[in-house]
Amino acid sequence: MTKLAVGIWAYGRCAERYVSDGYREAMPFERRLENVAALEGVSGVELSYPGDIDEANCEEIKGLLERHNLRIASIIPEIVCEAKWQRGALTAMDDGLRSDARARIKGAMDMASRTGTKIVNIWPGQDGFDYAFEVDYARGWELFVEGLAECAAHRPEIKLAIEYKMSEPRMKCYAANAGTALALSMATGRPNVGVALDIGHSFNAGENPAMSVALLAGQGRLFHVHINDNYGIADDDMPAGSVHWPQWFEFVHWLRKVGYDDWISLDMYPYRDDPQDACGVSMEFFRLAERVAGRMSVGYDASPSEVFRRIMRSFAK
Amino acid sequence: MTKLAVGIWAYGRCAERYVSDGYREAMPFERRLENVAALEGVSGVELSYPGDIDEANCEEIKGLLERHNLRIASIIPEIVCEAKWQRGALTAMDDGLRSDARARIKGAMDMASRTGTKIVNIWPGQDGFDYAFEVDYARGWELFVEGLAECAAHRPEIKLAIEYKMSEPRMKCYAANAGTALALSMATGRPNVGVALDIGHSFNAGENPAMSVALLAGQGRLFHVHINDNYGIADDDMPAGSVHWPQWFEFVHWLRKVGYDDWISLDMYPYRDDPQDACGVSMEFFRLAERVAGRMSVGYDASPSEVFRRIMRSFAK
Amino acid sequence: MTKLAVGIWAYGRCAERYVSDGYREAMPFERRLENVAALEGVSGVELSYPGDIDEANCEEIKGLLERHNLRIASIIPEIVCEAKWQRGALTAMDDGLRSDARARIKGAMDMASRTGTKIVNIWPGQDGFDYAFEVDYARGWELFVEGLAECAAHRPEIKLAIEYKMSEPRMKCYAANAGTALALSMATGRPNVGVALDIGHSFNAGENPAMSVALLAGQGRLFHVHINDNYGIADDDMPAGSVHWPQWFEFVHWLRKVGYDDWISLDMYPYRDDPQDACGVSMEFFRLAERVAGRMSVGYDASPSEVFRRIMRSFAK
Amino acid sequence: MTKLAVGIWAYGRCAERYVSDGYREAMPFERRLENVAALEGVSGVELSYPGDIDEANCEEIKGLLERHNLRIASIIPEIVCEAKWQRGALTAMDDGLRSDARARIKGAMDMASRTGTKIVNIWPGQDGFDYAFEVDYARGWELFVEGLAECAAHRPEIKLAIEYKMSEPRMKCYAANAGTALALSMATGRPNVGVALDIGHSFNAGENPAMSVALLAGQGRLFHVHINDNYGIADDDMPAGSVHWPQWFEFVHWLRKVGYDDWISLDMYPYRDDPQDACGVSMEFFRLAERVAGRMSVGYDASPSEVFRRIMRSFAK
Repeated sequence: MTKLAVGIWAYGRCAERYVSDGYREAMPFERRLENVAALEGVSGVELSYPGDIDEANCEEIKGLLERHNLRIASIIPEIVCEAKWQRGALTAMDDGLRSDARARIKGAMDMASRTGTKIVNIWPGQDGFDYAFEVDYARGWELFVEGLAECAAHRPEIKLAIEYKMSEPRMKCYAANAGTALALSMATGRPNVGVALDIGHSFNAGENPAMSVALLAGQGRLFHVHINDNYGIADDDMPAGSVHWPQWFEFVHWLRKVGYDDWISLDMYPYRDDPQDACGVSMEFFRLAERVAGRMSVGYDASPSEVFRRIMRSFAK
Repeated sequence: MTKLAVGIWAYGRCAERYVSDGYREAMPFERRLENVAALEGVSGVELSYPGDIDEANCEEIKGLLERHNLRIASIIPEIVCEAKWQRGALTAMDDGLRSDARARIKGAMDMASRTGTKIVNIWPGQDGFDYAFEVDYARGWELFVEGLAECAAHRPEIKLAIEYKMSEPRMKCYAANAGTALALSMATGRPNVGVALDIGHSFNAGENPAMSVALLAGQGRLFHVHINDNYGIADDDMPAGSVHWPQWFEFVHWLRKVGYDDWISLDMYPYRDDPQDACGVSMEFFRLAERVAGRMSVGYDASPSEVFRRIMRSFAK
Repeated sequence: MTKLAVGIWAYGRCAERYVSDGYREAMPFERRLENVAALEGVSGVELSYPGDIDEANCEEIKGLLERHNLRIASIIPEIVCEAKWQRGALTAMDDGLRSDARARIKGAMDMASRTGTKIVNIWPGQDGFDYAFEVDYARGWELFVEGLAECAAHRPEIKLAIEYKMSEPRMKCYAANAGTALALSMATGRPNVGVALDIGHSFNAGENPAMSVALLAGQGRLFHVHINDNYGIADDDMPAGSVHWPQWFEFVHWLRKVGYDDWISLDMYPYRDDPQDACGVSMEFFRLAERVAGRMSVGYDASPSEVFRRIMRSFAK
Repeated sequence: MTKLAVGIWAYGRCAERYVSDGYREAMPFERRLENVAALEGVSGVELSYPGDIDEANCEEIKGLLERHNLRIASIIPEIVCEAKWQRGALTAMDDGLRSDARARIKGAMDMASRTGTKIVNIWPGQDGFDYAFEVDYARGWELFVEGLAECAAHRPEIKLAIEYKMSEPRMKCYAANAGTALALSMATGRPNVGVALDIGHSFNAGENPAMSVALLAGQGRLFHVHINDNYGIADDDMPAGSVHWPQWFEFVHWLRKVGYDDWISLDMYPYRDDPQDACGVSMEFFRLAERVAGRMSVGYDASPSEVFRRIMRSFAK
């Protein structure tokens, strides 16, 4: 049974480089929860540590969530959005910074533990480089694996999901695609290190998301899923299904096929759209994709054209 | 004789979507001028209207520039960075907004006139769309041409340069590449509408910048040039030459060959680098490129490999 | 009323760089016609000059086509697929080669005239370059425009449609995208030079095909349309709709909206699929797209999410 | 000490989809060896099994190589270029085909053993898919790992290097990038399964090649290296350095830094260039890159701009 969640940053002001004051007023935290709770079929939220939840407000947040009948899908330790991480977090050469990054992850794990959350989603967006010759990659890869392993040992019952992404904000990131995130997980030697597959990041990496689902699940390391859509260039974080259809249907088909039954979380940045409307239409598309996916079978028994014909005809049923 | 300038936003806080508070403190206006003036070989700045220069402060700005021995390479009317442009500026369906956008451009032209600036650089970054079926493209193209033509008639002695770009902030933009910007210019029927070639936007569009230089100059519509570099995906606005070399050398070669002698303006966004250092290294690369370009000849008299060999050997001279 | 055609190369052996002997036996010419004639709703073919049709066999081919109730959608002069064009055809620096290329185009125009065909489709795939500094772009652009203008004057009643494409076989091609092809057409000063929009080439160029339809039609230069699909990287020439859906629906919507009523021709290369099956499924998708497109309206009266919602709901009707 | 080799397909007719008869006559085998032997600093060739070397001609080939003072850098089992592999080789669902593919790899390993070659380079270019829903990815990944493991056990002293590549000829391939190839290697549980890094494939995958060198070497799985260059879209297989410079210098720097001392093999397809000339210029660039790389240090002790400055200045020394 699919559990759907929403990353509550969707209700923020959606600032970007050009419109740096944002496209709207940020919505207060509790109103975000109300909105999420109002979405059909959605029962969870994704929160940032320590931005949304921390040691001081943890009980209060738990109360608020209970009141809105929401659970936490995952907690995301903030290791990207402050200027201090600009030379990396898990791979920072500065010992203090690197230690801060690990502390952030462990802090998020502690919050997960206190709130009954199973997943800590690590997005290492500043762990990468901008220029050729800027970074000592060998040391970087080592520190990455070492950092993940150390954090994994902190609470073996909490799953660490590496949210891979090719670029943004660094021009190139270490954990760029499903294969690299998987190899990093395996290299830690820890069973509670795995991968968060964001379908948009997967498109940006030139992957077919369904193929990555099967790769990661086959190694027991598909820990978390983010949904949205984009044009395959930048991380547009548009509503689910607004660009890709056949690939999206296949993605949902494969999530079922591999028995994925953890959270599927909407990670959206609706710059020029109404956030609640964009969440609603995403969920509507997700249900459409589930219907189509449920009618499809994988086609290696058929000619390629026949497979494509089946997708079209699944709408007529 | 090349005239070099710097867009003074390089000295801003460089906020982006993730690090929305920016990577540093914004530098005060006059200190920006001091920095630009200190760069070897640089004699101009690029300013935004009405952000940097407007009707009220125009004389004061002129004084400041004089004091620093700087001229204005181009003035850029602001039609992107406020939330109100989110459904387009020149192509907005709302009559009031569209009229505002034209007023902004005319205002920038007036400032240009008062300051002895020849170029108004129009970057229509919100004129585009996000979703399929969102926009009436036919009306959009019409309004685009009509708006440019109306502005061009306002002051025929000022050149309007369309700075084309595939995307950002809109997911897809009307004026996406050199060819489209050229066709739009031609469609206005006005000789003072042309194109600003930003080498990074050219890479993003899959162009070879030198080829675009020749296309635009051949039709008498290469009006302005921005320099920087990127990885070919997003508009990274990194220092000139930090990624591409042979293509950059060829670009400089062709600027000379077509006799381009207007401003070449550095358009950079040094998120995680020192702005002045990044400006300095860009200019150093530009001089390297000029040396190499000066030694090269176009190779249609030689085998392809021989051409490549010449590039390499130009360093040894 | 849409007129559908098929480029008969779909029934060839589909050789490529790796499987250079091809994936199957090439089908004899007449059997190709039988196959096309058997496709529901298809009434035309696209032929190559002088490969499929030439001065010697013209009457015979006309007879064959009549027998199968087929018309010629367009004739394509061969200026790419022989090794001799490797340094360009319309832009070749060698006078003899360049003259041959023009003769090929005029020959195709003569065939068009004899067969009652309105469109000659020019695909200048070798007119481009591989290396930096290899080509004199200024001369290249000139020759391109001059060559088109000369051919256009040969028979003003025949339309020349430039089939733009970013690359393949040359690493970068002159006529790379809709805007460039349009600007080239305008520069000829001839009303019978326009553009062939291949939806796959449009995706490769980072365009939204519907937006390009409106651009070209708005200038009266949308002369021909090719359909297929791809993953946005190379020119995969897969069945129509096998990858993109919302963009495809919008494309068909805009073809109607601008009143395009000329040929729509399937340009496919079914390497690893049965050609007839791949043609059939393409036409099936095209009809699906027509149904959806017919139910849609352009959404600038609605929020972006609402637009997307309408696409989804168009299936339920 | 770097050992340089050339894949002898560079001297073939270089057919592709469009110019399917090729751009020139294929050169006879022995003349290819003569050409390779004449290249400064080159001491090896890369051969295909059973196309170039097989059980029948093995001793003869050894004699020829000895006469030209050449060694075999790696042997490549042919599992791509025949139409029969169109639904996959290692991942074919057909038991017979899959068994053939494994036999090919083992045959290449036997040849390697008889000729004192350490590396068998596996390029699984047909192991992938074209359409959504076409392939059972879960079974595919399993078969891939199982096949590699079985072959690895056949001769543990021979190294199997997976040459990863995003696409071509299949639209999407399983072993798409360095991370995926690494994860597959690790999943086999065999130390003699590793990765062949082709710098062009690395660019196509959006990687920074130097970063991938460090990733693979750090896990002891960088087994083989191919060099060439491209524009980052398709596998152009152009001369080394014809497009990328700073990234190429950094790549060579990191090959040294990780102590890579096996073969570096030129994998080129000089469609429109003289093969020997293109090989020569590639090697000239490689020596340039070695000189620059030798003067550079990794810059995490310096500002990013300073790093870039060092690259430029390395030419002046």
